[in-house]
Amino acid sequence: MELTGKNIMGSTSSAKGETLFYASNPSTGQQLNTPYHEATLQEVDEAITLAEVAFTEYREKTGSEKAAFLETVADELAALEQEIVGIGSQETGLPVGRLTGELGRTTGQLKLFASLLRDGSWVDARIDTADSNRKPVPKPDTRQMQIALGPVGVFGASNFPLAFSAAGGDTASALAAGCTVVVKAHPAHPGTSELVGNAIINAAKKSNMPNGVFSMVHGASIAVGQAIVRHPLIKAIGFTGSFRGGKSLFDEAARRDEPIPVYAEMGSTNPVFVLPGALKENHEALATGLSGSVQLGVGQFCTNPGLTIVPEQEEGNLFENVLKESISNAESATMLTDSIQRAYNSGLEKLRSKEAVDSISYGKKGEQQAQGIPEVLSVSANDFLSDKDLEEEVFGPSTLLVRTQDKAEMVKIAKGLNGHLTATVQGTETDLVEHADLLKILERKVGRLLINGFPTGVEVCHSMVHGGPFPATSDSRMTSVGTAAITRFTRPICYQNYPDTLLPDELKTDNPLNILRLENGAYVLPDK
Amino acid sequence: MELTGKNIMGSTSSAKGETLFYASNPSTGQQLNTPYHEATLQEVDEAITLAEVAFTEYREKTGSEKAAFLETVADELAALEQEIVGIGSQETGLPVGRLTGELGRTTGQLKLFASLLRDGSWVDARIDTADSNRKPVPKPDTRQMQIALGPVGVFGASNFPLAFSAAGGDTASALAAGCTVVVKAHPAHPGTSELVGNAIINAAKKSNMPNGVFSMVHGASIAVGQAIVRHPLIKAIGFTGSFRGGKSLFDEAARRDEPIPVYAEMGSTNPVFVLPGALKENHEALATGLSGSVQLGVGQFCTNPGLTIVPEQEEGNLFENVLKESISNAESATMLTDSIQRAYNSGLEKLRSKEAVDSISYGKKGEQQAQGIPEVLSVSANDFLSDKDLEEEVFGPSTLLVRTQDKAEMVKIAKGLNGHLTATVQGTETDLVEHADLLKILERKVGRLLINGFPTGVEVCHSMVHGGPFPATSDSRMTSVGTAAITRFTRPICYQNYPDTLLPDELKTDNPLNILRLENGAYVLPDK
Repeated sequence: MELTGKNIMGSTSSAKGETLFYASNPSTGQQLNTPYHEATLQEVDEAITLAEVAFTEYREKTGSEKAAFLETVADELAALEQEIVGIGSQETGLPVGRLTGELGRTTGQLKLFASLLRDGSWVDARIDTADSNRKPVPKPDTRQMQIALGPVGVFGASNFPLAFSAAGGDTASALAAGCTVVVKAHPAHPGTSELVGNAIINAAKKSNMPNGVFSMVHGASIAVGQAIVRHPLIKAIGFTGSFRGGKSLFDEAARRDEPIPVYAEMGSTNPVFVLPGALKENHEALATGLSGSVQLGVGQFCTNPGLTIVPEQEEGNLFENVLKESISNAESATMLTDSIQRAYNSGLEKLRSKEAVDSISYGKKGEQQAQGIPEVLSVSANDFLSDKDLEEEVFGPSTLLVRTQDKAEMVKIAKGLNGHLTATVQGTETDLVEHADLLKILERKVGRLLINGFPTGVEVCHSMVHGGPFPATSDSRMTSVGTAAITRFTRPICYQNYPDTLLPDELKTDNPLNILRLENGAYVLPDK
Repeated sequence: MELTGKNIMGSTSSAKGETLFYASNPSTGQQLNTPYHEATLQEVDEAITLAEVAFTEYREKTGSEKAAFLETVADELAALEQEIVGIGSQETGLPVGRLTGELGRTTGQLKLFASLLRDGSWVDARIDTADSNRKPVPKPDTRQMQIALGPVGVFGASNFPLAFSAAGGDTASALAAGCTVVVKAHPAHPGTSELVGNAIINAAKKSNMPNGVFSMVHGASIAVGQAIVRHPLIKAIGFTGSFRGGKSLFDEAARRDEPIPVYAEMGSTNPVFVLPGALKENHEALATGLSGSVQLGVGQFCTNPGLTIVPEQEEGNLFENVLKESISNAESATMLTDSIQRAYNSGLEKLRSKEAVDSISYGKKGEQQAQGIPEVLSVSANDFLSDKDLEEEVFGPSTLLVRTQDKAEMVKIAKGLNGHLTATVQGTETDLVEHADLLKILERKVGRLLINGFPTGVEVCHSMVHGGPFPATSDSRMTSVGTAAITRFTRPICYQNYPDTLLPDELKTDNPLNILRLENGAYVLPDK
């Protein structure tokens, strides 16, 4: 399949700009062939204007129509598996198996949102009927549901070229909400994005969706992204990436004449607390499990366990030894981009340069370029507590081991934590009872709390929270993974005294869509 | 009942500051006796620190315990009715009947949130159970629910000294969410606030709530409010007031090291569209009804109809005449404060000074101070469309009549609107069918759409939306009235692989609270 390097403006393509950029293969360092045309500001404006026009039509599509569209996107992507995975692995250095799995997750996400739309109850329908006899004034009929915000800007993420990119969770949930989408393709995998973008366009045509329901622009500089965030017709932003990138979008959006919500998932160090009993019973399996979680995806997961808190007991030393051994036997692997690999190295260098921190184990460097070498560093709890830098994310396959003297130190560390996506506690039943206070503290710090597991691996389901207090995200009230992600792109509206015929089907008195509703304060759940 | 003029720091009071201010009776212009102590920055910090300490305990209270607390607040307020209404009418110039009604609404809100807590289903519980046989990796058990954000800062509003003030909707919903609250009392009714604040403290004691679950500080300068918004332990802000005030809090919060959500309801002009058929059938009742809605509460409602769009047909002139007649017979009334009255006058003056705008009718000035005189102004659609100033809220009993040549002009006006809290359409069945496009446009502009009613009067119920796109509010995704307001102060958390005993009751497998849950994608609604 020939790549064009052009911007996707609804059903047409456009390449007005003269600024070109190229992807490269991180494992060889070689530049790939296709030149990509950075979108001009005019092209960004055209794409967004088209998204606004399309929105007035797309928002009126029924849930089933939108569901069919999402399912068709999934089908189109599945049909292109070989091409997508082929170009994807060239552009990202990720193994074919990983990309195949990620494509499955991506199509699965689309289908999950489709099923949410077919069910229909997600709109949180609420009906309070009129009471003309109420004193002192009659009670009006009021009905509420969620409606779409408008055109949404989505920023593709580097670390999940499929599941968090052009047709990833942000796009899927925004389209499901009834929003049109303008994607800023991540410049590290523009070819993958083009294939995926074209699949969405094909699906839109097949499903009779309005032209402009989806567009995608390229850009290697920050100008394109800024233009999206600043555009008055854009009503929300989805982003997964670095703190610096996410925070600058947040600030930009807050400075607009009309501020808009920015859902920026900005990374996290995902502390793992190993409790004394679990350590005693199970130090070997815990250390091996942690080593695997640290290395998964070359540590390029938002939920990578970058911080491990382990008591200073004898088995803590054994745990440390097993972990060191495991990491020292580990092979390096190609990171997503050259610059990510350089950032990983400089993050480690910054840690190593601290007097209080020791590098205690590292893996083997492979032959290819942009190698991320697994590494374990160590620091005492006391030193950790006195240096906020040590909590910062180092994006890559490393973890900082913090050794604690006692429970009080562990609790103190937990209390001092910033917001993270996840926290994990490894503990026996007794441990967990004895550390109930620790769990309560961690509840205030994260979006997801795991017991006896590892944070890598984010299940796409109704109950997932991939989010958490700042600085993990810019909006702790939301999740970017799972079906609850849809409400990032909606707001409630109330219809007062509306004739039944003018109401949306979700709110008509006889409940034609057969959805769950809150009717005069009681949940009514029709048989399905 | 003796007023102390002191800040309420949980169960103690404090008056460390040397800056004093006084309330005054707007109808006489006379200063009232009690000196109020503006809180020092240290007192603000103490109140918030106390709220943080209390939060760790308060968030663990069961729904029933929190419900009992809210109900006790309502009882305490009802028991103080005479005192509250007495001081309230002195401080605000509002009639006793209105304040009595507003107190009923305030206690009603508290009880409604209590009933929401007793039902328990508001937490949006979601459960996806484990599947150890799933390939390629086992599926973990994940469970999600909403939890409280932390201490919340609430700014009392001038225009509803009870329902949007110390124990108003923001406080009630934040306490219901499980947050502790620090109120900044509105300096125009500090005595009313003190009585209400004391009632909350008494209820907290009687209900065994932790000291610091509620505090209230005074301040006539902006320093106190800024200190609340800037305080790192404050996790969200509720505000109802002017655009300038709300936007400055929003900006302040966005600039924090850790940005926090600000729910600012910043006012709105609440356009009313009168369609040709309704006008033909019913011009007299419509004009009289509008006149009443404009004057209600001396026009000091966020939902006051400040903009009325009426076709240039014969009955449009008749409508205008009836409205003029009605307003010219109307009496002025005392506004909430001297400065609100001055702002009303200067807002009108700004309108009148425009060449395109005519003042076509005004009411009679009464004897008392701070009189708001009802007024109708008029402008052609064409002139309205060319001057964005004309859409701005003039807080008080006035409306700007916009006369349109045809449907196209009406649609153009709708398309050009900023965000508002409400829009109203007066129309016959035929009108509504013929103006379906107008309704669709308005849907994107407001939080509540009314047919054949008037926007004043905000029902407190499950389906109400008192919110809307910017600049009506700073966050269109939320409502400040009705039970959905509770989610402003919560965020989702996911528990992964948690032992049942450690899960909150809302998520335990056997559903001990008997709440609605989404279990493996299916809504499960136990019999109650």
